[in-house]
Amino acid sequence: MYPTFTETKLRTFTEDVFKAIGCSNEHSELAADVLLKSDLRGIDSHGVARLSGYVRLWEKQRINAKPDIKVVHETATTATVDGDAGLGLVVAPFAMQIAIEKAEKYGSGWVSVRNSNHFGISGYHALMAVEKDMIGFAMTNASPLVAPTFANERMLGTNPMCYAFPAGKYPPLIVDMATSAAANGKLEIAQRSGKAVPEGWIQDGQGNYTTDPHALKTGGALLPLGSDRDHGSHKGFGLSATVDILSGVLSGANYGPWVPPFVAFMEPSPNPPGQGIGHFLGAMRVDGFRPVDEFKANLDNWIKRFKSAQTVDSTQKVIIPGEPELEAEANRKVNGIPLVQAVVDDLNLLAERFGVERL
Amino acid sequence: MYPTFTETKLRTFTEDVFKAIGCSNEHSELAADVLLKSDLRGIDSHGVARLSGYVRLWEKQRINAKPDIKVVHETATTATVDGDAGLGLVVAPFAMQIAIEKAEKYGSGWVSVRNSNHFGISGYHALMAVEKDMIGFAMTNASPLVAPTFANERMLGTNPMCYAFPAGKYPPLIVDMATSAAANGKLEIAQRSGKAVPEGWIQDGQGNYTTDPHALKTGGALLPLGSDRDHGSHKGFGLSATVDILSGVLSGANYGPWVPPFVAFMEPSPNPPGQGIGHFLGAMRVDGFRPVDEFKANLDNWIKRFKSAQTVDSTQKVIIPGEPELEAEANRKVNGIPLVQAVVDDLNLLAERFGVERL
Repeated sequence: MYPTFTETKLRTFTEDVFKAIGCSNEHSELAADVLLKSDLRGIDSHGVARLSGYVRLWEKQRINAKPDIKVVHETATTATVDGDAGLGLVVAPFAMQIAIEKAEKYGSGWVSVRNSNHFGISGYHALMAVEKDMIGFAMTNASPLVAPTFANERMLGTNPMCYAFPAGKYPPLIVDMATSAAANGKLEIAQRSGKAVPEGWIQDGQGNYTTDPHALKTGGALLPLGSDRDHGSHKGFGLSATVDILSGVLSGANYGPWVPPFVAFMEPSPNPPGQGIGHFLGAMRVDGFRPVDEFKANLDNWIKRFKSAQTVDSTQKVIIPGEPELEAEANRKVNGIPLVQAVVDDLNLLAERFGVERL
Repeated sequence: MYPTFTETKLRTFTEDVFKAIGCSNEHSELAADVLLKSDLRGIDSHGVARLSGYVRLWEKQRINAKPDIKVVHETATTATVDGDAGLGLVVAPFAMQIAIEKAEKYGSGWVSVRNSNHFGISGYHALMAVEKDMIGFAMTNASPLVAPTFANERMLGTNPMCYAFPAGKYPPLIVDMATSAAANGKLEIAQRSGKAVPEGWIQDGQGNYTTDPHALKTGGALLPLGSDRDHGSHKGFGLSATVDILSGVLSGANYGPWVPPFVAFMEPSPNPPGQGIGHFLGAMRVDGFRPVDEFKANLDNWIKRFKSAQTVDSTQKVIIPGEPELEAEANRKVNGIPLVQAVVDDLNLLAERFGVERL
């Protein structure tokens, strides 16, 4: 059994830590909301477990607690935002808000972001659009951990992409996925348990497939979605490249192997081609294409049909994208958020350091 | 050795066949251009090999040779197009042209399409935007051949997505991919040669993995990119769902298992929820985000760095998305387009039927 905490307890704690490093009240609340949403939705790797990581980057002056986030280039429906090295947790919602405002006026809005940091879960940002009956898009590049097909070098992050759609009687359909075969969070779980990972997730320092979850520490790399050429790893590579170009090359952020590492003990590249990490966010009004009620009725019909698809095993239904996260959220809202002890200990070190109430 | 034909010869032939079924000169030239681009780029499955398939759908009155393609809903940057059951080969470029015009005015343009048919290769349409220094997006849903994760039923097409980016000294970077582990064209090649396919491409009628390329004829299905749950097939399913929703649910086309089959011998569903098949096309001006020359210089830098990545095998470099198709195009422009004899015979039957000069 893991120690379990209420949402409120963790939220207050997280806000207090952000305030302690100098974030405004508004930014602290927003950043905590993004992390909590991740914990509530069962994506433990992207929630409060990352809080001390953000603090370490702040200590290294790689995260600016008081950023002046601003639009540096725009048209009616496009913009580039400079995050001023702020927390991605606040920079990305700022950018998404601009995308939504543009979509309200012109049907769609698209914002690329440079000079930012890790933005938490993509789904948080994409869902901001869904609440306005828009389709939400969110992606980000990230520290290089993934080797392109045929490469023996980490060139790309797990570069997630998220597409979110408002449904009617069903909850939103949300595709929120790393473009690698396995997300880094899954690898971390295997590292903690010492269990072998499936072949096709990682390669070792020589570029051979391995099931050793620690292979990344000795020059290995995660593999793109598809795992190998025969099974379409060039497609996973292509998707990851798309995320990298829209987030990094289009905005003026770093890209590819130059994306600065999330871990504070690794230094960024000495002569980077851009600023910080990059995101790409978008919103399209559903009623820019057809009436919202028609769209929602048809998406409900889609979901209903897929939920009732014939299955290979009668005990395992087809899972609609976003369903497991929603179930976790319903459960954890009521029953609390379990944290592994190592995370609790890590957070309590922050508590002592900043004079915040311990968990 | 395959019989080989010049681009001009095949182009004239294809135009003549489209004219013979009643397409206007303009539409015939455009439709032929889309098919030829596919053959030139080495995507043999989507080129003139499909010509008799389009003719059979026309015979069944499922393709309208004289469509009245029109915008039925729009905002400044979004639109829905009704293809009037026309060839997707002409409907999609019509829609992309609208996306480009909206992007010229407002920074971006997005068009969903209903009541269309197979649109050839996604890359053709996305490249129309790239020629204007825009980023091009193209996707389409397609006849159900793919089983979602855990399903034993064909619910989705190979639903391709394409992202295309203009570079500077390098050719455009183009990610153009089926969201299934293997494209149907690859399966057809294995069927013709009688060779086993890699495990992870298809499942049989009972939902078990099989290497038999003919398993689709006995109730089997293609698998999503990722192949199985452990390797991320839910991600391939999610991407395919995204294509289906943007192309079908958003436009008012059919979606999921209701997408009408490309093969004329299979009848469409009796009570479909939409009209024809759907596409989704988009264009974003690069200079809506940063100056074009800056973007291109950085994308060139991206490409150069990835081309020179350390590799596992010194004889196999990293392949930039779109590179193989470009090499094929350069080669086939000069040396002609090889066709398998079965395709030549099939085309010559069309020639006899329509009084067109034989190949």
